[in-house]
Amino acid sequence: MKAVQVVGYHRPLELTEVSEPTVTGPFDVVVRIGGAGVCRTDLHILEGQWAEKSGVTLPYTIGHENAGWVHAVGAAVTNVAEGDKVIVHPLITCGLCRACRSGDDVHCAASRFPGIDTAGGYAEYLKTSARSVVKIDDALEPSDVAALADAGLTAYHAAAKAARRLRPGDRCVVIGAGGLGHIGVQVLKALTAAEIVVVDRNPDAVKLAETIGADHGVVADGSHVAAVLDLTGGDGAETVIDFVGEGGATRDGIAMLRRAGDYHVVGYGENIDVPTIDIISTEINLIGNLVGSYNDLCELMVLAAQGKVTLHTQKYPLDRFQDAIDDLDNGRVRGRAILTP
Amino acid sequence: MKAVQVVGYHRPLELTEVSEPTVTGPFDVVVRIGGAGVCRTDLHILEGQWAEKSGVTLPYTIGHENAGWVHAVGAAVTNVAEGDKVIVHPLITCGLCRACRSGDDVHCAASRFPGIDTAGGYAEYLKTSARSVVKIDDALEPSDVAALADAGLTAYHAAAKAARRLRPGDRCVVIGAGGLGHIGVQVLKALTAAEIVVVDRNPDAVKLAETIGADHGVVADGSHVAAVLDLTGGDGAETVIDFVGEGGATRDGIAMLRRAGDYHVVGYGENIDVPTIDIISTEINLIGNLVGSYNDLCELMVLAAQGKVTLHTQKYPLDRFQDAIDDLDNGRVRGRAILTP
Amino acid sequence: MKAVQVVGYHRPLELTEVSEPTVTGPFDVVVRIGGAGVCRTDLHILEGQWAEKSGVTLPYTIGHENAGWVHAVGAAVTNVAEGDKVIVHPLITCGLCRACRSGDDVHCAASRFPGIDTAGGYAEYLKTSARSVVKIDDALEPSDVAALADAGLTAYHAAAKAARRLRPGDRCVVIGAGGLGHIGVQVLKALTAAEIVVVDRNPDAVKLAETIGADHGVVADGSHVAAVLDLTGGDGAETVIDFVGEGGATRDGIAMLRRAGDYHVVGYGENIDVPTIDIISTEINLIGNLVGSYNDLCELMVLAAQGKVTLHTQKYPLDRFQDAIDDLDNGRVRGRAILTP
Amino acid sequence: MKAVQVVGYHRPLELTEVSEPTVTGPFDVVVRIGGAGVCRTDLHILEGQWAEKSGVTLPYTIGHENAGWVHAVGAAVTNVAEGDKVIVHPLITCGLCRACRSGDDVHCAASRFPGIDTAGGYAEYLKTSARSVVKIDDALEPSDVAALADAGLTAYHAAAKAARRLRPGDRCVVIGAGGLGHIGVQVLKALTAAEIVVVDRNPDAVKLAETIGADHGVVADGSHVAAVLDLTGGDGAETVIDFVGEGGATRDGIAMLRRAGDYHVVGYGENIDVPTIDIISTEINLIGNLVGSYNDLCELMVLAAQGKVTLHTQKYPLDRFQDAIDDLDNGRVRGRAILTP
Repeated sequence: MKAVQVVGYHRPLELTEVSEPTVTGPFDVVVRIGGAGVCRTDLHILEGQWAEKSGVTLPYTIGHENAGWVHAVGAAVTNVAEGDKVIVHPLITCGLCRACRSGDDVHCAASRFPGIDTAGGYAEYLKTSARSVVKIDDALEPSDVAALADAGLTAYHAAAKAARRLRPGDRCVVIGAGGLGHIGVQVLKALTAAEIVVVDRNPDAVKLAETIGADHGVVADGSHVAAVLDLTGGDGAETVIDFVGEGGATRDGIAMLRRAGDYHVVGYGENIDVPTIDIISTEINLIGNLVGSYNDLCELMVLAAQGKVTLHTQKYPLDRFQDAIDDLDNGRVRGRAILTP
Repeated sequence: MKAVQVVGYHRPLELTEVSEPTVTGPFDVVVRIGGAGVCRTDLHILEGQWAEKSGVTLPYTIGHENAGWVHAVGAAVTNVAEGDKVIVHPLITCGLCRACRSGDDVHCAASRFPGIDTAGGYAEYLKTSARSVVKIDDALEPSDVAALADAGLTAYHAAAKAARRLRPGDRCVVIGAGGLGHIGVQVLKALTAAEIVVVDRNPDAVKLAETIGADHGVVADGSHVAAVLDLTGGDGAETVIDFVGEGGATRDGIAMLRRAGDYHVVGYGENIDVPTIDIISTEINLIGNLVGSYNDLCELMVLAAQGKVTLHTQKYPLDRFQDAIDDLDNGRVRGRAILTP
Repeated sequence: MKAVQVVGYHRPLELTEVSEPTVTGPFDVVVRIGGAGVCRTDLHILEGQWAEKSGVTLPYTIGHENAGWVHAVGAAVTNVAEGDKVIVHPLITCGLCRACRSGDDVHCAASRFPGIDTAGGYAEYLKTSARSVVKIDDALEPSDVAALADAGLTAYHAAAKAARRLRPGDRCVVIGAGGLGHIGVQVLKALTAAEIVVVDRNPDAVKLAETIGADHGVVADGSHVAAVLDLTGGDGAETVIDFVGEGGATRDGIAMLRRAGDYHVVGYGENIDVPTIDIISTEINLIGNLVGSYNDLCELMVLAAQGKVTLHTQKYPLDRFQDAIDDLDNGRVRGRAILTP
Repeated sequence: MKAVQVVGYHRPLELTEVSEPTVTGPFDVVVRIGGAGVCRTDLHILEGQWAEKSGVTLPYTIGHENAGWVHAVGAAVTNVAEGDKVIVHPLITCGLCRACRSGDDVHCAASRFPGIDTAGGYAEYLKTSARSVVKIDDALEPSDVAALADAGLTAYHAAAKAARRLRPGDRCVVIGAGGLGHIGVQVLKALTAAEIVVVDRNPDAVKLAETIGADHGVVADGSHVAAVLDLTGGDGAETVIDFVGEGGATRDGIAMLRRAGDYHVVGYGENIDVPTIDIISTEINLIGNLVGSYNDLCELMVLAAQGKVTLHTQKYPLDRFQDAIDDLDNGRVRGRAILTP
C-alpha cells in the first residue's frame, strides 16, 4: 500500500510502497484510512524534536489523527466489525494497568502511539487496537472528523473537565481561538451555561469565536487582562483555559483568574513561573491537561453527531501530502488539513 | 484590660491597658482569651511585612490564633452562649456573599482578620462574630488548641482536601515535618489509608513524624527525590503536600509526583517555575491551599477531641509575651508557643 | 396594606387590611411585592393539609413564591439596597448551623417559611431576610419570575444535580411535562448535552416539551416503559427525573432506568416500593430532591436572564385572588397564575 | 483434577474428576486454588434459586470466592506471571464496553461469573482472565483472603463509597455485624474518622464489633431506632449502611437517617417501601451497592496487607466440602468457611 514516511530528520517526507498491516493479535483492528489529520506535531517530528522521546526507528509512517472504516479485526474484537465507520483514539493502551482500569487510559503504563512511535495513518491502512476505535454516527464522514482524534480530543478533555465546576453565572476565559480553542468554545457551549470570554491576538479569530458561541471576545493587544477583569466585575474569571501556553499567556491568564479559580494548562511552550504566595493567598489551581481518554472521544463523537462541534477542514489527496505540509507550515490552512485516500 | 500591641514596626510589642471590647452588633461575640498562639506571622507583622497589605492603623492588638470562653453575645447569636468553651476561626466573614453561601467562607468578599487588620487576641478579651466561634469538647482546653485555629487549620484544610482523592495503595508525600506538617500527618492518618512519606531536612523531625503515623521518613539530604521515587516503585507519589515552599522544595516536590498527581502548595517563599510541557505531558495539578473554612475548623476540633490530632505547646503568661516572641525567633519553641491569661 | 389571608380551613381566603411589615432586625428586608405565584400548595393549605405540620396561627397571609422590589433594609444588610429588583428564596435560614455553613441552607436547622408558617406574599409587602433575596437582572420582571422562586427552584435543583453526572451520549428521562417538568427540560438543555426524553400522559404537553428542547417525547399510554427502553437500545436511561411521583410513575420510572442509573424523586404522592434485590443487583440510586438552595436560585436567575428558562404566566390583580385560585383548581391556568399589585 | 459440582438442584454436591482447565485465549489465566470461600449463595444455588437467572447447564463446578497461585497464562497476559499469589475478582469482564472503560467493570455489558454461570473454584484449578486477577502481598495467604473476593469486596465497595461523603463529626450506622458488617466496620475505620454505630440483634456480634472499631454498639431489640437517634442528638446519622435488608431493617434504617443522609442498600430480602413525600421532604438518598470493581479489590488487598482488614476463617480440605456446607447451613461457621487444597 501507499504510505508517507519519515526517512530522516530535516528531510522531506517520502511517499513509498509498504506492505499492508495485517491482524496478528486477538485485539488488532486494521482501519482503512478515510482521513488523516496533518498536525503541527508532524512538523516538529520532521524537525527531529520527537526523535529521542519517541525512540522510533526510521523510516516509519507518520499521522496520528485518523478515521476510516474497519478493514479487518482480530478474533477477540467484539466492539466493531468489518465495514464500521470509526475514529481512532491516538493511543493503543494495555487495558490492564491501574490507569486503564480507572477509565484514565491516557496514563496507561504501557501505551503505544501510532504516528509517533509506530506506524501511523498517512497511508491506506493503519493497524490499531479494539481499545482504540470508536464507531461514529452514520451522518459523520471520517475525513471530516479525523482531526478531532487528537487536537479536538485534547480540547474536549480540557473543556469538559473545566465544565464540571462551572455553574450558571460563572465565567470561563478561553485563551487562544485557533484550532483547539475553536473546539473548546463549542464544547463549553454544549456542556455549560457559563459565560465564555475568548481572548486571541487575532481580531478575526476573536470574531469567528463570537459566531460559534463566545459571549465576549477580547483582542490580546496589551489591555486584555484589564478587559477581562472589567468583564468580570473586577474579580476575574472562575476558570481560564489556556490553549496557548507561550508568549506570556500563562502570566496573563493567571492574572485573569478569580480567587479559588481553575487555570487549565493545555497549550505549552513557556514556563509557568508564579510565586507560591500568590497561589496560596488566592488559593488557585493550575491544572494540567493531556489528550482525552477513550470515553472522552466517544463523548466528543456524540457532540459531533449532534452538530454541536464542527471543524473546518481543507482536504488533500494522500499524494499531495507535501502541499498539505507546506500549507500548514506557511499558515495557509483554515481549520485543519486532512489527507484523504 | 491588658493587651499586647504593635506600637510601631521594627519596635518591640508593648503591654498596655485598653478598654474591653463590648457587644455592639447582633452577631458580636466577645471571647475571654484562654490561649493565644504566637505565630511566625506575628514576627513578620513586627517587621512591617504586612503593613501595606493589612492597612491597619497602629497601635493595635495582635494575635490571630485564639481560643477561650464566651463572655458576651449579641442579640441574634444562637450558636453559642455565655460560658461556652470555644476556638475562634481567624476570619470574620459576611455570610452573604457567594463564597460564604457556598461553605467557602475563606474567600468571603468582605472579611476581616482580627490580629492582622483589627484587634486580635494577645489580650484578655477578643471581639469576634457568631460566624467565627466553634464550641469545643469539654475535654479540650483553650490553651491547648489555640494554635489549631490558624496553623493547624491550614494543615487540616490541605490534608483533608488531599485525602479526598487518596485511595488505599496511594502514596502521599508530606514535605516539611514542622508544626504544619506534624498536624498534616496526623490528619492524613485519621482520614486515609494511603501510605505517608515524610520528607524533612531535620533527621529528628523525620523520626518524630514516624512516631505519629508516617509510614516512611526521608531526610532531605540531596538524595531525597531519588529516595521517594524508589519508595514508589519509580512512579512517584499520587499526592505531594508541600508545607515548605522554599529552598527548592517545589522543584523537588514536583519531581516526586506521579503522572496525574496532585501537588498541594501550602508553604510559600519561592516561585513555582515549571515548564508547561511538563505539566501537560504528565497531566499534574498544582493546587493552592489557604487556611480552612469554618466547617474545616469544626472537623479539626472533632479530631482533636478524639485525640487523633495533638500539638505540643509551650505556655507563657500574657505578661511574658516578649519571652515567647524571643523564644520563637530563636528556635527555642518546641511545638507552638501560647500566651495564657 | 392589603393582604389575602387564610381565616379558616375549608373556607375561602379573605382580602383584608393589615399593618405593613417593618424592619426590626439587622438582616430584615421588606419587599414590595411585584408578583406572587399561586401554587397548588396554597390549595392544600386551604384544605388544612399543612395545618398541623406548619403549626401556623390563623389568620395569616399566604403566598410563598414572591418577587418584587426592596422597600426597606435592616442595618446589617449589605447585599441589596432599597429599590433593587429581587426574587425571594422561599426559606428564611439561620446562617449559623452546619447546613447553612455548607451551602446547603435548605436543610437549615432553624428555618422559617413565609406563606406557610409565617406571613407570605399575597400582599403589598413581605418581610424576609437578607439571606433570602436575590437581585435579578434589569431585563427581568418580578411578576414574570415569581413562580421560579419555589416550583421553578425545585425543578432547577433536581435538574442541575442530575446534570452533574450526565455526559454526552447519556439519556435523561423527564417524567411529567407540567410546570416543573417544563422548567426541568429547559435547565437540562442549558446544562448538559444529554438526550432528553419527556414522558407525560398529555400528548399536548409532550408536544410542547419537544418545542422547548426535549429530544424525544413519549405519551404515557401504557407502552411508555417499552418506548423508553426502545429509545435507549434496551438498556434504559442513565437518569430519570420524576416530577410526578404518583399514579404508578415511580414503578414505571424505575423500570426505565439503566444499571447504575440515578432516579430523582421530585414529585410525590405514592410510595416507592421496590425490592432491595432489584436495587442492589442493578446498583441504582434513588435520590430525593427538595427545593433548591439560595445559590441554586442565583443560578436559575442567571438562566432566566439569559433567556434559557422561561415560564408562561397568567396574571391577576391581587384583588382577583379568588379567580386565580378557582382557575388553578379547575385546570384553567396555562403555566403559572401570578398575583400582581 | 478434582472438582465439586452441582449435579442437580435439591441434591447434594458431588466430588468428581474433571479435566484441568487450560489456556486457550490470549488473556486466559489458570489459577491453582489455594482457598475457595463457601458462601450462602452456594446454598441458594443448590436450592435452584439461581437456575433461571444464571442459565447454567448442569453439572458444573461452583465456588465464586477464590484465591491461589497463577498456574498458566495466555500470550497477552502482562500483569501476572506463573507462580504469582493472586486473589480472583468474581467477574470476568470484557474490557471494551463503556462500563469497563470507566472503571465500573461490575456493570460490564458482557461479563461471566465463574461459580455461578461457568466453572468455579471448588476445584484444584480455575480458569479466569488477566482482567480478574489481583496480585496479593507476600504476607497474605490465599486461604486467608479468599472470602474477601466477593463478600468482603461487597462490604468494601459500600463502605468505601459511603466514606467518600463522611467527614469528622459525621455518624455512620452499620446495620448487621455479621460477615459483611464485620468487614464494613474495619474498612470505615481505615478510611474515615466518622463515628461508627453498629446495630445487630445479636449482643455478641455487637460486642465483637466494638472490639474492631465500632464507637457504639446498639442491640436491635425494638428500642434501637430510638437509641440511634439518641446517640445522634435526635438528628439521625449522616449515613446508614444496611447489610441486612430484611426483617424490617430498611424501615428502621431509614428512620435512623438524618436529613440529606445516605442510605446504602447492601443486604437484601424485603422491599424498600417508603412514601415519596418522606424522601423529598428530608431529601435522602437510597443508594444501591453491588460487588466492588477490580480496583476496589486491589484497594481491599492493600488494607488486608496492612492488617487493617482481617477475617476469621474456618478451613476444610476440598474433600470435606459437605461438612463446610452443612456447618454453614447450620450456623456452625464462625467467620467464613474456606475449602483448601
